[in-house]
Amino acid sequence: MSEYDLAIVGAGPGGYVAAIRAAQLGMRVSVIEGERAGGVCLNWGCIPSKAILRSAELYRTLVTEGSEHGIRAGAIELDYPQVIRRSRAVAERLARGVESLFKKNGIALVKGWGRIERRGVVAVSSEPGGSAVTEIKARRLLIATGSTDRMLAGVERDGRSVLTSRDALALTELPRSLVIIGGGAVGVEFAYIYNAFGTEVTLLEMEGQLLPGSDPEVAGELSRSLKRQGIKVMTGARVEAAKASGEGVEVTALSQSAKATIGAERLLVAVGRKPLCEDLGLDCLGVETENGFIKVNRRFETNCEGVFAIGDVIGPPLLAHVASEEGIAAVEFMVGRRERAVDYRRIPACTYCQPEVASVGLTEAGAAALGIETVAGRFPFRALGKAVAIGHAEGFVKIVADRETHEVLGCHIIGSGATDMIAEAALLCALEGTTTEVAHTVHAHPTLSEALMEAALAIEGGSINF
Amino acid sequence: MSEYDLAIVGAGPGGYVAAIRAAQLGMRVSVIEGERAGGVCLNWGCIPSKAILRSAELYRTLVTEGSEHGIRAGAIELDYPQVIRRSRAVAERLARGVESLFKKNGIALVKGWGRIERRGVVAVSSEPGGSAVTEIKARRLLIATGSTDRMLAGVERDGRSVLTSRDALALTELPRSLVIIGGGAVGVEFAYIYNAFGTEVTLLEMEGQLLPGSDPEVAGELSRSLKRQGIKVMTGARVEAAKASGEGVEVTALSQSAKATIGAERLLVAVGRKPLCEDLGLDCLGVETENGFIKVNRRFETNCEGVFAIGDVIGPPLLAHVASEEGIAAVEFMVGRRERAVDYRRIPACTYCQPEVASVGLTEAGAAALGIETVAGRFPFRALGKAVAIGHAEGFVKIVADRETHEVLGCHIIGSGATDMIAEAALLCALEGTTTEVAHTVHAHPTLSEALMEAALAIEGGSINF
Repeated sequence: MSEYDLAIVGAGPGGYVAAIRAAQLGMRVSVIEGERAGGVCLNWGCIPSKAILRSAELYRTLVTEGSEHGIRAGAIELDYPQVIRRSRAVAERLARGVESLFKKNGIALVKGWGRIERRGVVAVSSEPGGSAVTEIKARRLLIATGSTDRMLAGVERDGRSVLTSRDALALTELPRSLVIIGGGAVGVEFAYIYNAFGTEVTLLEMEGQLLPGSDPEVAGELSRSLKRQGIKVMTGARVEAAKASGEGVEVTALSQSAKATIGAERLLVAVGRKPLCEDLGLDCLGVETENGFIKVNRRFETNCEGVFAIGDVIGPPLLAHVASEEGIAAVEFMVGRRERAVDYRRIPACTYCQPEVASVGLTEAGAAALGIETVAGRFPFRALGKAVAIGHAEGFVKIVADRETHEVLGCHIIGSGATDMIAEAALLCALEGTTTEVAHTVHAHPTLSEALMEAALAIEGGSINF
Repeated sequence: MSEYDLAIVGAGPGGYVAAIRAAQLGMRVSVIEGERAGGVCLNWGCIPSKAILRSAELYRTLVTEGSEHGIRAGAIELDYPQVIRRSRAVAERLARGVESLFKKNGIALVKGWGRIERRGVVAVSSEPGGSAVTEIKARRLLIATGSTDRMLAGVERDGRSVLTSRDALALTELPRSLVIIGGGAVGVEFAYIYNAFGTEVTLLEMEGQLLPGSDPEVAGELSRSLKRQGIKVMTGARVEAAKASGEGVEVTALSQSAKATIGAERLLVAVGRKPLCEDLGLDCLGVETENGFIKVNRRFETNCEGVFAIGDVIGPPLLAHVASEEGIAAVEFMVGRRERAVDYRRIPACTYCQPEVASVGLTEAGAAALGIETVAGRFPFRALGKAVAIGHAEGFVKIVADRETHEVLGCHIIGSGATDMIAEAALLCALEGTTTEVAHTVHAHPTLSEALMEAALAIEGGSINF
């Protein structure tokens, strides 16, 4: 039986990043993972969906913009199984990449499912909840088991008519019609993908706007854009029932006291995720949970000495880069190399449909709830040279700043390139920068990032180009 | 005869931006422009070239990557005149945009060519060097006349076989073969564009690398990538002669003491730009020039009281965003609203081929010349999830930091999305931030901007994903 400084259960973006950072800091590390390295994010989430999105963007651009660009293609055919094959190959390549990073950093990857056996010992089985085939002994344990798709009460996944996002990422047939329940990032991305490929898509969201919690102006613009693209978007829609019907599904939703019944070939349920910690043996040490999530302090310690947890399993925000940051923080805290807590107020979040949506920091409502008076600056992409030149000029940048100091508290972007532009805004927030500072920074022309500078100028005395 | 607080000669990215900022600050402003508002940048430079580049990218992506993405198009035909028509329409739309910004800000746009008549008076003629049709009286004069294509000694532009970049932007026939003299940003962009559309391209650069002055590792990577794409790249190539030959041109170049003669249908000369100030009547006030550029101090004042100059006409770097920044600075200095000088050490520069190239701040050699000891951090896009997912994983990010303080002195990027990613690096440089700070900033996953964080981590104790 090997002995390690740190055993990590789960090799997702929390666990694998923590493992590498721990190895860099000199720890002997073992990672226990039942599936491929990289977790849901790399294998069944962010990465394969971005690969499919890229194919969807290309296909849709060719179909809707090709002739404007002087490109005359004969009959355009879609080989959808190839789209999925490519996305699987991308995930496979990156999973192998993580496995080779483990080798490079001297990290032991143990194939199997981990369960706490007793203090300092993790039993590993070859299937979830199975009997132990080996044991890993380690001074510290880091739980990074992540989360899985949540289902709606009364709706049963069958992997054929009723799908989770994971099912959809493997599905090689393009549905003729699809209802998506859930208008968060995952639901919106799949709505964009399937609509781009020609599926008739209905997107249902229970809250009053898409991407609940995001800036309402951005959400409104997104809703209008998706509708223009041909997606049926229903917000404030409570699903009453969803059942198999003949060859497809039938979904009944209540919206503004009107009842609608939508028939479709398939149903995708994207109503959120739930933590994965049932088979971990938390009880044997008495590890505390709350609403199913493992409870930790700011150093990611549970109530049991030597047992830590990070990522989706400790609760929202359920984002890959949050898990990575928590993973790095947790191991740095363990060895006394860190004092600052993870700053949850400055976490960027992205939705990779077209137009893209990205935000960081506070909305105006969020700031008001904290008693902060704000001022907002906006700049529309239709006034920006680069956006017009590439033919993607919808959307805008909105900066929320402290009314008095002009410190940038949040930034909300919808438009082409938003998910890469948000990095500058996130850096600005992290450095507690002001709109004065970003307005005074020379931005290259013509680039999309000029819109951020112009939105700041709108607060500082006036945009130039609007 | 009208009287203004400020008369500006030239409505390019220097002049039009200065005019708007001056109007915001309460000045009565007149702008004299003989061509369309927006100048070379908007009408015959950055903007139409970016429109054409977008078409070239789409066409090349479809041809080289379509089948990988499951897109089966029949015979793909290119309607190149439509590519040019679209780029002209983009420029037209944005020029009208600038003209309406003038209206909105109460700025008088005077159609014609300006020449200093006497102190405080500009004569306006309907053609360059023609007789005055009107006069503009103003307390202050700002010269923002920009620059025009420079030709090689002994090579004569004819607009048919021998082209400038402006000719190329109007040319509706795609040449079968093309020699480009000059491997700076303009030459490289046209090489990418024409090669993408199927022209046989030879790119000649006199210096030892493409994009002279840029990071040599980036330039090397660019050269290799362009060669893989099918472009013949010759660096260290001194052009000895270029002459019309039958239906085309013949260029003789000396490279490493070997002489090569290259025949092609057309020749594009992209060897730089020269200031436009010959017909301005500078002599009548005795405005000083140096090497043809107007001399100014840090407040953009010439040696003549009340006469200012900005943009390409005052010398390098000849970049649109530098002209805009100088224009804003000049009018703010005029009214005592500014103290800080334009920071020429932190100007981003972009080349919009694929892979894109972007940089800001110092190279290692540039820092060494200033006696600064540096440390460099690199991260390759092939190790980045988003880059692999979109299938564009060539290139890297390189950060140059002060060895002791880790202040970021420069950033050099080659890869997909580089021209938008550089904004974060430029902000970091402007705020005198460190690699520690960018490494500690949470970046959204999966985004290309994670590469900047990883390059910073390479300096801070190790990248995670490489």
